[in-house]
Amino acid sequence: MPLLVIGSVALDSVHTPRDVREDVLGGSAVYFSYAASFFTSVRLVGVVGEDWPEEHTLFLRSRRIDTRGLQVVPGGKTFRWRGRYETNMNDRETLEVHLNVLGDFDPVLPEDFKRCPYVFLANGSPQAQLKVLDQLTGPRLVVADTMDLWIRNNHDELMQLFRRIEGLVLNDSEAMLLTGDENLVRAGQRIRELGPKFVVIKKGEHGAMFFSQHETYVLPAYPTERVIDPTGAGDSFAGGMMGYLSEANNFDPPTLKRAMAYGILVASFNVEDFSLERLKEITREDLEFRLRQYQRMLSF
Amino acid sequence: MPLLVIGSVALDSVHTPRDVREDVLGGSAVYFSYAASFFTSVRLVGVVGEDWPEEHTLFLRSRRIDTRGLQVVPGGKTFRWRGRYETNMNDRETLEVHLNVLGDFDPVLPEDFKRCPYVFLANGSPQAQLKVLDQLTGPRLVVADTMDLWIRNNHDELMQLFRRIEGLVLNDSEAMLLTGDENLVRAGQRIRELGPKFVVIKKGEHGAMFFSQHETYVLPAYPTERVIDPTGAGDSFAGGMMGYLSEANNFDPPTLKRAMAYGILVASFNVEDFSLERLKEITREDLEFRLRQYQRMLSF
Repeated sequence: MPLLVIGSVALDSVHTPRDVREDVLGGSAVYFSYAASFFTSVRLVGVVGEDWPEEHTLFLRSRRIDTRGLQVVPGGKTFRWRGRYETNMNDRETLEVHLNVLGDFDPVLPEDFKRCPYVFLANGSPQAQLKVLDQLTGPRLVVADTMDLWIRNNHDELMQLFRRIEGLVLNDSEAMLLTGDENLVRAGQRIRELGPKFVVIKKGEHGAMFFSQHETYVLPAYPTERVIDPTGAGDSFAGGMMGYLSEANNFDPPTLKRAMAYGILVASFNVEDFSLERLKEITREDLEFRLRQYQRMLSF
Repeated sequence: MPLLVIGSVALDSVHTPRDVREDVLGGSAVYFSYAASFFTSVRLVGVVGEDWPEEHTLFLRSRRIDTRGLQVVPGGKTFRWRGRYETNMNDRETLEVHLNVLGDFDPVLPEDFKRCPYVFLANGSPQAQLKVLDQLTGPRLVVADTMDLWIRNNHDELMQLFRRIEGLVLNDSEAMLLTGDENLVRAGQRIRELGPKFVVIKKGEHGAMFFSQHETYVLPAYPTERVIDPTGAGDSFAGGMMGYLSEANNFDPPTLKRAMAYGILVASFNVEDFSLERLKEITREDLEFRLRQYQRMLSF
């Protein structure tokens, strides 16, 4: 089944303890789309400026990614983010954010995108996420991401959103902020009571937790010593997860757990190089190989 | 096979955000012994003062714990620790430490203890750990714990110790301190190159990692919302792990992984109440039940 994603498309500048990359391809919708394209065809909705290199669009199209929903704003500039990672490669500092055309982004879905059965609302204001929801025609599964900014400043709209989505994906620190509870097991269960049928808490290098009415579990990250750039790890996790669910056209508990595992594994490749460099090198077979290793790792 | 442990025996005072307990049974050798006693008979070597409540000794003896190696120093006072946990229940502050009789502890093993095939050197100075090693007669498996104090101040003795043990168990922060590497996968592999045939890095609420020449893996903690007191979690992890290895009388890779799982599960019960209160309530059957749940959680 096709998968729709609405989110940011960016040019990122990334500083790590060893290296710097300027204006590389990034953004939540980009990482998500590429990750999901291992599993299914993707329809991307986002916005860029006139400075957007056409080669990036061609690159995305070379996968199963439909870019008809990528608006190019004449005279506008593409969203830019600059960040620096600490030596632990988990904590990062945002050095610069230029919203540019993303600041006024009002996503309007192409007619045939509206009937997409699987939908991911990447991090964005809950108002914008709700406006996308209003355009959809009977989606089977809508999952959203959010962040601290909206939790702090747009609580009411976020609560509206939660009552209208099947799944929510967020970071551990965001789950604690949202609930005021530092125990992630309790935090996840409380967030689920706010509306989403399932909640996924991303723990970075420590993996991800899953919460539904009947199940609570945690899966560890795949241990890798090659952590070059964690940018996009959360979005490629979500892309792997949603991509697999769309391919399976199912989200029963066993399928959801396998989808979590695929998300973790796509993310584990993603961090092994800057931007999408590492994901470009791998195939579905590499994911399957790592999945078998991961399953063996968790068997005793 | 019997299992020997040398470590601290303490009266702990524990402050959590909700509650306080004064002078409760604690110490690394105590948590370790009780945890291991689900699996095998234990021989405990430690020291206490005249203030030590005899009921604690009787309580330990009511399990398969041989306390003939527990020295009582006339006129001495038992080691006391007082700590306060932050609201996240992971970070803690030590408020008071009174080494008392532990300060001069010179462990002398009863003759029949020296031939114990399975040995755990709980956290202590590497000099004291080496002196215990010198008393052993052909042990099959020696595993040690250590801490930041010895890593900072007794590096040479620690390196001597590492060359003489099969396994090392330490915390994530200690592994980073020891190697100067914040990537735990690399840190674990580097520590193994210092001597131990296998290394276990404990990550608290995030589980534990295992490193040997041929294997690197991570197992998550069992998710529990009932975290009352994390004191002794690391020692009860080690006790569960070593207890199972002693019972199996084997430490091949599959047995080690299963032992890691048992360690994680004993620790998951341990944190559910103060001191040994929760472990007192459970049986081997409770561990087996949780093991099956844990295996299901990690299957997809």
